[in-house]
Amino acid sequence: MKNYFIAKSRRIRSTPYTSRIENQGVTAYSVYNHMLLPAAFGSLEDSYNHLKEHVQVWDVAGERQVEVFGKDSAKLVQLMTCRDLSKSKVGRCYYCPIIDDKAGLINDPVILKLDEERWWISIADSDVILFAKGLAIGNKFDVKIFEPNVDILAVQGPKSFKLMEKIFGKKITEMKFFGFDYFEFSGAKHLIARSGWSKQGGYEIYVENTKSGLALYDKLFELGKEFNVKPGCPNLIERIESALLSYGNDIDNNDNPLECGLDKYVNLDTEVNFLGKEKLNEIRKQGIKRKLMGVKIETKTINVAKSIKIFDEKNNEIGELRSGVYSPHFGHVIGIAMMLKPYWNKSQSFKIELNGKSFDGKVCDLPFI
Amino acid sequence: MKNYFIAKSRRIRSTPYTSRIENQGVTAYSVYNHMLLPAAFGSLEDSYNHLKEHVQVWDVAGERQVEVFGKDSAKLVQLMTCRDLSKSKVGRCYYCPIIDDKAGLINDPVILKLDEERWWISIADSDVILFAKGLAIGNKFDVKIFEPNVDILAVQGPKSFKLMEKIFGKKITEMKFFGFDYFEFSGAKHLIARSGWSKQGGYEIYVENTKSGLALYDKLFELGKEFNVKPGCPNLIERIESALLSYGNDIDNNDNPLECGLDKYVNLDTEVNFLGKEKLNEIRKQGIKRKLMGVKIETKTINVAKSIKIFDEKNNEIGELRSGVYSPHFGHVIGIAMMLKPYWNKSQSFKIELNGKSFDGKVCDLPFI
Repeated sequence: MKNYFIAKSRRIRSTPYTSRIENQGVTAYSVYNHMLLPAAFGSLEDSYNHLKEHVQVWDVAGERQVEVFGKDSAKLVQLMTCRDLSKSKVGRCYYCPIIDDKAGLINDPVILKLDEERWWISIADSDVILFAKGLAIGNKFDVKIFEPNVDILAVQGPKSFKLMEKIFGKKITEMKFFGFDYFEFSGAKHLIARSGWSKQGGYEIYVENTKSGLALYDKLFELGKEFNVKPGCPNLIERIESALLSYGNDIDNNDNPLECGLDKYVNLDTEVNFLGKEKLNEIRKQGIKRKLMGVKIETKTINVAKSIKIFDEKNNEIGELRSGVYSPHFGHVIGIAMMLKPYWNKSQSFKIELNGKSFDGKVCDLPFI
Repeated sequence: MKNYFIAKSRRIRSTPYTSRIENQGVTAYSVYNHMLLPAAFGSLEDSYNHLKEHVQVWDVAGERQVEVFGKDSAKLVQLMTCRDLSKSKVGRCYYCPIIDDKAGLINDPVILKLDEERWWISIADSDVILFAKGLAIGNKFDVKIFEPNVDILAVQGPKSFKLMEKIFGKKITEMKFFGFDYFEFSGAKHLIARSGWSKQGGYEIYVENTKSGLALYDKLFELGKEFNVKPGCPNLIERIESALLSYGNDIDNNDNPLECGLDKYVNLDTEVNFLGKEKLNEIRKQGIKRKLMGVKIETKTINVAKSIKIFDEKNNEIGELRSGVYSPHFGHVIGIAMMLKPYWNKSQSFKIELNGKSFDGKVCDLPFI
């Protein structure tokens, strides 16, 4: 596949760390929430191997925050998600599908409850702030909605715990998964969550004080030397092997959360009021007609830049591949596909055409095992 | 400036024309509404010279449509824009700032009135569909809102009229600026508007039938040979020389339309009801505190990837440059800058630092003359 350059402009925002990662060898960018998101530092596979063994610092400022603040904030946040947040606690992160009144997915953020009347919606790639503003204005909710000046640094990988302990002390290693707390560095307080878009463990630092964040970035590399720290970014191989869904890639507004295997975040049997509840009840009653599944394909290279159709032996279209990558762990290509009913059975075999050649594949469960 | 690759994925959507422009030599992409937007075919200046003399075909599918349809559609569309649409006519395009309740710009689309109860909002780079959905749900409006399957092909340049006439006949040359009508090609009807994101004249073809659109694309290049047709894209030099504003670059949600010189699209002295009207009245009464202006800078190269601060002789910060490019026409760098009060006078001199060197500049009117 030929490579193309990215045309930079103010519209595709730089982050406070852009000049640093460019000095450190970033080679490719994606664009995420109108912002540069590093996509490669040379070889994807080298970076994958490193992430699984050592520790990486990621400039993921593209994960923007939508702050919802004020008397009706809980009501608005609950209206947007099918996950029951009535028992949510301050100091915790919640993975929450955001859906519209037709139950179509609008985003799949992690929501942080900062206070009873203050929330951060840590978004995937769509302008949730506009949906929130529209809903708040239309419903005359008493809330303030804005994008705070927060740029996330993720510290990911098995050695992230040791590295973060060196800077922030023992306390940070005691935080539970999806918990968050505040930690001081260089005169500023940073919200740090035990979270991140890999399954290799680690933290996300929600940097509000840019100056302190830049000093922290440098400190992470200084103290990280003994842990073989490197700059990195969400890794396509690791995230597909770990079955971490990507909004816009694996799921989008034409999908509902029940089709996407997000059932445990769909709380229909509760009292809470959210958009699309009626529609989801209807879908549940009728049953879904397609389902997001894993697939394995008998080849060693793939580039998925758009959906690729999947066929059965009789050439019936039975689904579409949405993400895919060669997995060193499994020794073949794995991917995430939306499969039509009744073709989502585990071990359903299929054919797929890649670069003009036909390959065999099989449907499998997510996560991959 | 070092170049970086773009990482492709389904999330950054391809267009029906992506494979064609890649065969035709596209070298760089931007991302616009989660879609690939070609940004260069080799030299920017060669493409600029060609655009001003001949005709180009642009894959601008990234200009997505938000269709608003139904009984309350006019009410919703009007609610979103400060331009009075009460006398708008079917078959016409309207440039409309979309603002929120704080008068912050959310987008600056061209709105097409397809029918009394059917509109296309042809958007710049932000998810207006989410704002529209939120407002419609909150206000319980009787409307349908969706992204139709429309991919725009622009035909731009002084020879576009001759080329389009060869395909669609004399009638298409009689269409007025910002008018639209329907024209048949290869068994499909295409909405074609006399519009486009250059000042070199031309059309935008709103392709709904992809198969016919692909045939039309090829036909434009076949019949265009005698007019020296080339593939192209919105050209940074041409658009800045023409003072065409770019949402996300020159203007954003922190700006109001009065600061951006959009006064003639702000109809405060009318009966129509729109978001931010009260706030805009207040701003008008108090007077704006900053203003979007042209600037010229005494240098021949620039790359604006983010805002660059502008200072007066005493090192007071007096504004920020948001876009800039070397203009072959003017013989120096020109740009678009947000200038603080009282520094927006024409001929106000300033200093700006580019790559560690200080350069002199002057404020000027928009459009440049």
